[in-house]
Order: sequence, then structure tokens, then C-alpha cells
Amino acid sequence: MQVNDFNNYLSNSFKQIITNDSIVTQAMAYSLIECQGKRIRPLLVYATNALFNGKQGDCNDLACALECLHTYSLIHDDLPCMDNDDLRRGHLTCHKKYNETIATLAGDGLQALAFEYIGASKNLDDTQKAKACYTLANYAGSNGMVLGQCIDLESEGKQIDQDTLFELHDKKTGCLLTCALCFGAISAKAYDQLDTLDKIGKKLGLAFQIQDDILDITKSAAQLGKSNSDQENEKCTSVSIIGLQHSQQLMQQLYQEIEDYINQYNEGNKQPLLDIIESLKGRQY
Amino acid sequence: MQVNDFNNYLSNSFKQIITNDSIVTQAMAYSLIECQGKRIRPLLVYATNALFNGKQGDCNDLACALECLHTYSLIHDDLPCMDNDDLRRGHLTCHKKYNETIATLAGDGLQALAFEYIGASKNLDDTQKAKACYTLANYAGSNGMVLGQCIDLESEGKQIDQDTLFELHDKKTGCLLTCALCFGAISAKAYDQLDTLDKIGKKLGLAFQIQDDILDITKSAAQLGKSNSDQENEKCTSVSIIGLQHSQQLMQQLYQEIEDYINQYNEGNKQPLLDIIESLKGRQY
Repeated sequence: MQVNDFNNYLSNSFKQIITNDSIVTQAMAYSLIECQGKRIRPLLVYATNALFNGKQGDCNDLACALECLHTYSLIHDDLPCMDNDDLRRGHLTCHKKYNETIATLAGDGLQALAFEYIGASKNLDDTQKAKACYTLANYAGSNGMVLGQCIDLESEGKQIDQDTLFELHDKKTGCLLTCALCFGAISAKAYDQLDTLDKIGKKLGLAFQIQDDILDITKSAAQLGKSNSDQENEKCTSVSIIGLQHSQQLMQQLYQEIEDYINQYNEGNKQPLLDIIESLKGRQY
Repeated sequence: MQVNDFNNYLSNSFKQIITNDSIVTQAMAYSLIECQGKRIRPLLVYATNALFNGKQGDCNDLACALECLHTYSLIHDDLPCMDNDDLRRGHLTCHKKYNETIATLAGDGLQALAFEYIGASKNLDDTQKAKACYTLANYAGSNGMVLGQCIDLESEGKQIDQDTLFELHDKKTGCLLTCALCFGAISAKAYDQLDTLDKIGKKLGLAFQIQDDILDITKSAAQLGKSNSDQENEKCTSVSIIGLQHSQQLMQQLYQEIEDYINQYNEGNKQPLLDIIESLKGRQY
């Protein structure tokens, strides 16, 4: 799956589902479609679908759902009452481009849209929809990503230990990456793989976030396309807790374990998922 | 269905689904469980289920889902960047009790929890879950309630016409009331009734909101248990646009049409739904 193909599907389906051009709709489209991110989560959905020999077309709506959910979380995370960031994906954050009220509503609308993509899908059967609805809600909600945001806020300005930091990373970042893997499996009806994918997703979330922590201190805001808000907000990071070198070692080790997991699968097309892991390992922003 | 039974189910199931006691979880429980509203939407779910001869137990999770969704919308609607209200359901609003950040996250968590109630339900089959997921997302999202919030914001301080006001009422209030009726039908597998219920729900939303507009100018904040924010925010209301007397007439007429619709059903138990309409007609807050 090419990113461009996904972007086209997202853009076209968005216009079909949302039938008005209100300012909130415009703000949703701005953050979701105009300010394109790296689309890591959608790509993980497609790659995991390939691992289980699914049909690519069955992934489209789940990939869109997850990107909507992810984008809502970024919009709300950037709000003045949260991280108060001005830049995201190289563009103005939603509340800077519009205002705080519109950004709050755009986030709310994108969360609902995520579940609408699931419920309205023409490619998924009811069992897939029911499982996807539960999976997304569980990973995104107050046992998952929202809990991660909460731990993040409560940790600000405090010295936290490694366990708390890693729980934060798991909830705030790992949950949606894990959801991406699970969505790939659900789209291929490989329901018996969900527990294993939860384990891989946890490792991926930790590796990804440790890498973010490393990049946050080794790259400029311009290179990252977003503010170095961790430093400004005096947040504890893996670098500040276990050091740069140990963070780099741990990140490499986690990526290796993920690749080992994937390589255990004998059927299906592993290459797309291995390629994503390889490109994540080398990312510079 | 008695409100107390619903409140007990909500409280117990909330603790089973959310397995942590973070500050965001506490804020969610505060707004959802401690600050009990009138539970109109859950009661409508149960009553509509009875109209279609459904099993009451099949409603529980959908009723909880809808109350979670409604409560999230109130929390975000009360935020400083929105209506900036201090009082809700006779208690401090979520951001006044906690803070703005926690309230934003509590709303986000409650929206996710709504869909988790659907996805995790032990009483619903996959078709019911898929339909409920779509129905809630569609009525709650940027074609529905979120659009209503957007129209509301854009109308503030402006003179709007009756059509715009009634669209606002339909989206902001009618959509979730309609969703309640649809959830009742889905719980009873009366899927062919959804279009008719959409028509009844639109009338109910308009009647309900015109009544709110009337109460907002005829009752004190203490009687309402919330601020008279419409007047303070200089919002157009049905009273300001079509006058108090005409508003009262229109409200009575809409309630009559709703009762006529319900009375057309020959099977099932109409009384619970007729009782709710009767009590809504007479409500003083």
C-alpha cells in the first residue's frame, strides 16, 4: 500500500461521509487531510493485513478510522490546556489555524468519525465491525490512550521512575500502534492473533516513543516539524531517566524483538511489515 | 425501567470496564455517575425497546453508551472555550471541579467509553453492535450533534432566522434523542423502524429545545440546576425569534404529534414512552 493511495481513499471517503462544509468540518479536514502525517498507523494496518493474507480493500475503512482517532488525539493534545503547541506535522496546530473552540469540536468530531468509518464500512461484516468498535474504543479510551495522556499530565514537572515512564509510553503511544496491528488482523479475520499482536504492539510503542525522546533532544523543531515541547515542558523522558546511550540500545533491542516476532510467522506476506519496522528504525523525525 | 435501576447498572458496569482510578477516571465518574442528570435518553431507550416488545436487559449497554456520549457533550460544552458554565446538573461543572485539561480528557474518555459499551456488550449480537456503532457515530458526529455545536457557536451574537435555529435544535438536541429511540429499536431488532423513529426524534428534539428556551427565561438558575447561559451569551432562542406564546403553542403541537405517532403502533407496550412524553411536557427544569 502506497501512502498516496491511502490519502486518496481518505480524502474521497471523508467527503462522502461528511455532507456539510461547516467550519468544524473544514478544521477536521485541515488536520486530517491537509496536514498529512507520516500515516504510520494506516500503513501498519495494511501491512498486518498482508501478514495474514487479507484483502487490501478490506483495510481501507479501518485505516481511515485509526487515522481519524490519532488525529483527534493530536488536536486535543496540542490545545492550550494540554501541551500548548503551535506546530504539528510542519503546519500550524488546529487551534492556531482556527481557534480553541473549533479545535475542541474538530477533535470530538474526528473521534466520532473514526467509529463512523467502522460502522458505515461496506467492506466489513458485522463481526468485523463489532470487534473493531470494541478494539478501538478500548485502546483509545480511559484504559488506553486517554489514560496515557492522564499519566503524562500527572508526571509533568515531577521526577518519575522508569516503570511509570514505560507505562506512559505504552498507553499514550503503544495503544494506538497496537490497535493498528489488531485492525490488520481483524480486516483479515485473523481473530486468534489479537493477543500476540498486543505483545508486539507494546514493544513497538515503547521503541517508537523512546525514539521520539531521542529525536526530541537531538533534532531541531524545524527538522521534526513540531515543537520540542518535552524540553520546554520539562517532561521526564527515557533520555533523562536512563540516558541517551541506554535509550538507543533499548530501542534497537525492542525493534529486534519485534522483527523476531514477525519472522516467526510462516505464511502470509511479512515483507510490508518488516519494511515498516526497518523504516521506523531509521527515521530522523 | 426505574432510574435507580439504570443508575445501579451504570455505576457497576463503569467499574467493570474501567480498571484504573486515575484522576481522569474520577472526573468521568463525577460527571457521569455522581452528578446524575434526568437520564432522559436512557429512559427513552428502555421505553422504545418496550414499544417493540424487546427484552429490557438488551437495552442496558446501549442506554449506558448514550448517557456516556451525552455526558461527554455536556462536559465539553461547559468548557471555558465553549459556553464557560460553572453549574451543571446542580453541581460544579467538570472543569470547575477538576480543571480544564482533566475535563477535556474526561470528555474524550467518555466518548470512547460510549463505543466501548457497545463493543463489549454481552447482550448484543454483532449485527446490533454494528448498527449501534454506526447510529451513535452518525448522530453524535460532525453530521449530527457536533454540527449542532458548530451552528450554535457561529450563531452566537448574531440574529439568526427560524430555519437556522430549528436546524441547530435538531442537530444539537434532536440527534441524541433520536439516537435514544433508535437504540431502543436496535435493542429489540426492530431495524425497519429506524426511519420512522428519526422523524419522531426530530420532533422531540425541537419540542425539548423550545421548552429549554422557554424555561431558560421563565426559571432561575437555582431552579434549573445550571446557569441561564443563553441569556448571558446573548443567544437567539425560539422565544427571542418567534415569541413566548408562539413557542409554547409550537411545543404543545409537537408533543401532540409525537403522541399521535406513538399511538399508531398497535403492538407492543406504548405506555412507557407515552409516560415519558407526558412527563417531558410537564417538566419545570
